[in-house]
Amino acid sequence: MQEIIKNYTNLINKKLDEYLKIQYPNTIFESMKYTVTLPGKRLRPIMCVETCKIFGGDIENAIPTACAIEMLHAQTLIHDDLPCMDNDDYRRGKPTNHKVFGEAIATLAGDALLTFAPQVITQYSKLPDSIILKILNEYFQYAGAYGVIAGQVIDIENEGKFDKNSKADCRKILEYLHNHKTSDLFKLSIKTGAIIAGVNDNILGKLEVFAEKFGFAFQISDDILDETSTFEELGKTIGKDKQAGKLTYTTLYGLDEAKCKVDCLTKECYGIMKKLGIKSDIFSSLIESVRQRSGLE
Amino acid sequence: MQEIIKNYTNLINKKLDEYLKIQYPNTIFESMKYTVTLPGKRLRPIMCVETCKIFGGDIENAIPTACAIEMLHAQTLIHDDLPCMDNDDYRRGKPTNHKVFGEAIATLAGDALLTFAPQVITQYSKLPDSIILKILNEYFQYAGAYGVIAGQVIDIENEGKFDKNSKADCRKILEYLHNHKTSDLFKLSIKTGAIIAGVNDNILGKLEVFAEKFGFAFQISDDILDETSTFEELGKTIGKDKQAGKLTYTTLYGLDEAKCKVDCLTKECYGIMKKLGIKSDIFSSLIESVRQRSGLE
Repeated sequence: MQEIIKNYTNLINKKLDEYLKIQYPNTIFESMKYTVTLPGKRLRPIMCVETCKIFGGDIENAIPTACAIEMLHAQTLIHDDLPCMDNDDYRRGKPTNHKVFGEAIATLAGDALLTFAPQVITQYSKLPDSIILKILNEYFQYAGAYGVIAGQVIDIENEGKFDKNSKADCRKILEYLHNHKTSDLFKLSIKTGAIIAGVNDNILGKLEVFAEKFGFAFQISDDILDETSTFEELGKTIGKDKQAGKLTYTTLYGLDEAKCKVDCLTKECYGIMKKLGIKSDIFSSLIESVRQRSGLE
Repeated sequence: MQEIIKNYTNLINKKLDEYLKIQYPNTIFESMKYTVTLPGKRLRPIMCVETCKIFGGDIENAIPTACAIEMLHAQTLIHDDLPCMDNDDYRRGKPTNHKVFGEAIATLAGDALLTFAPQVITQYSKLPDSIILKILNEYFQYAGAYGVIAGQVIDIENEGKFDKNSKADCRKILEYLHNHKTSDLFKLSIKTGAIIAGVNDNILGKLEVFAEKFGFAFQISDDILDETSTFEELGKTIGKDKQAGKLTYTTLYGLDEAKCKVDCLTKECYGIMKKLGIKSDIFSSLIESVRQRSGLE
């Protein structure tokens, strides 16, 4: 199973490198490529490709979309790390994009990726026009103001303001925030993989719920790690959310209840897989990894 | 003729307002809408709609694309005005986006527009899938690292460095810069308008040359205005390019030769229109306006 993940990762990395050819003006392509190709788990593209395979699709058809989603993910990292946002110096153990290329180029590299990613889908997908448009519609829905950006805005607006809200309100805000900031890219990955395999809208709806729960569990596990881990282990600054007055599930409910929530959400994920008749070692291992990061066995 | 321009402008403004509905989280949509709906000439969407009409297309079909291009244009303004870029406080006589909404939201509003604009094309165009994809491919080509962003990167990289280059090199850099930073959105407007009307690739190529020349003339006329106008007339800070060590056609060649260049380029535009058998009061008036801004009668 580790072998399959390695094969997917290698294939995705090869294609990311191939799509992002350095050309004039070199700086912008180098800056885009820098963050896109930082070593990472390639979780989102793997989910896209694996979902396509689960439902009987040809994984080759999912590669352009999978890579586009990784590019979009890198874009969110570049702009989130900017001084006017989270002001982070390190990402995946390396200096952040603006630390290497300067703020202006980092801003433009993020902008360029937002156009480059859907262009990779239209340029390299060998799929009927109607399917390409269906993929793009999902992409636009989750990439923009209805998706990840909605989450990011709520994150910024509530910085340092959580103690003014009731616990119930805080929970609502957190759920909205994580649903968009984190789960939306998982929804996009899984749904587009399924669309490429020709899955119907009913199943797409169930996969969306799966992705939402997985994303929430993933985010809580991230918050748990942020409390229990070190810079060396994570490759990024530790405890920044707390410093910035950002609420996390662990600060709201404590480590034990956060673990409990991950336990519950991941079990619901297994439940949905079972109902859909999905057997996937890869998805099981991704869920297990979220459980392990949270200190669950 | 002023009546037709007014009708186009009203139609475009109405649709921009309609497409950009304020919804939760309100801040992001308000920020996007703020810059998109600032009073402006709507030059690019008018060119898109008018080109569609010239070649016998239904202008209703061009409206979503025309509005998408205006949104993309607004996006470039929001990010260009950021402190890490041109650091401008005023745009079209009003405070720039980040002055009203803060840097973080302004950055995200630009990001959101980059996804929202092509989404408007797919969501509202009543055109065959193949045409929508053809429009999107043009959009991606001109909006990203191959287009306006390439121009912006070269602009940033050469700031304060022009005196190290020969005059011939400066001219080459300026032409590349304006071709991408300014002309590319005109190319996009005119070509997509023509595609919607069903124009063939041969004519598309000629329209691209027209847009390149028009864009260059437009940019030089802007530089001339920057030397000869006031804040009240332009609604933005005057002489900033010079202060920032940016080269313009007027600083390289002087006002008289710049005027001469506009004269030459606009006459070439008329020549292309004649060859293509295009009679358009709107295009003629746009060209005349560029000539007048440059002090040509």
